[in-house]
Amino acid sequence: MDEKFKPLAALVESAIPIVSQMGLKVVAMRKGYVKLLMPLKNNVNHVGTMYAGSLFTLGEIMGGAMVIASMDAGRCYPLVKDVQIRYRRPATTDITAELSLSEDRLKEIVSVLEEKGKSDIPLELELLDAGGEAVAVITGMWQVRKL
Amino acid sequence: MDEKFKPLAALVESAIPIVSQMGLKVVAMRKGYVKLLMPLKNNVNHVGTMYAGSLFTLGEIMGGAMVIASMDAGRCYPLVKDVQIRYRRPATTDITAELSLSEDRLKEIVSVLEEKGKSDIPLELELLDAGGEAVAVITGMWQVRKL
Repeated sequence: MDEKFKPLAALVESAIPIVSQMGLKVVAMRKGYVKLLMPLKNNVNHVGTMYAGSLFTLGEIMGGAMVIASMDAGRCYPLVKDVQIRYRRPATTDITAELSLSEDRLKEIVSVLEEKGKSDIPLELELLDAGGEAVAVITGMWQVRKL
Repeated sequence: MDEKFKPLAALVESAIPIVSQMGLKVVAMRKGYVKLLMPLKNNVNHVGTMYAGSLFTLGEIMGGAMVIASMDAGRCYPLVKDVQIRYRRPATTDITAELSLSEDRLKEIVSVLEEKGKSDIPLELELLDAGGEAVAVITGMWQVRKL
C-alpha cells in the first residue's frame, strides 16, 4: 500500500470501535480500489461460522472506505442509505471483499457532488471465502455529501 | 419475563461473542413476542451515532430470537437468508425493535417445518429510537430448519 493511503486505511480500521473489535482489515487501498478482510476469529457465531452481521459490516464499510480512498476526505463524508444482503452459504474462513471504481465513474460521482452537494453511489459486492466462493452478495446505495 | 424464558434470553444475548460485545439485550420475550434493545454506548460510529452494522444486527438477531422464543429450540434452528435495511435517520439513542407473531402464524410456520423440514419466515421490522421514531426499516427472510 502506498504510504499516503496508510493513515486512511488505519482510519477505516479504527474509526468505529465495534468494527475495530471485529478485526476488520484494509488489505489494499488506492484511488478507486479497496480490498477488505473480515477475520473469522473475532466473528464466530453459535455454530462456528461467521456471524451474519459481521459479513454485513464487511460490505457496509466498503462504501465509506471507497469514498475515503478516492475522494477528498477533508471536504466530504460518506453515509449508507440502504443495503440488501443475500446469504448464499456458511462462511467458514476469513472473508474478503474488493471493489473497483473506474476513473470515469469517480469523476461522475464528484461532478454530481460538486453540483448538488451530495451524490449517490450504488454498489454491488461479493463476499468471498478463502476458496473464492461467494458466501454473500450485497447491493446497496451509499452517498457522499459535502462537509 | 417469565422464568422459563430467562435462559433463552441469555442464549440470545451471549451465543455470538461479537453481538455480546455490542451489548444487545432481550428486553422482553414470550411465545410469539420479542423486544430487543441495542445500546448506543458500545456501538457509536465516527460521528457519535449508532453504527449502521449494529442497527442491522439488532434486526438480524430478531429472526433467531423469535424462533428461540416460540419454537422448540431442541428440535430446530434458525438461519437468515436475506435482509434489506433502509436507513431513515441517525440513531442518537439506544434503539429497540419488537415483533409479534400470532398463534395462527406460528402454527403455519411449524406446520410447514414438520412437513418439509424447513419453513421460511418473512419479517418486517422498524428500529425505533427513544422518541419512537423509526431510524431504520428492515425486511427479510429467515428460515427455521429441523435439527
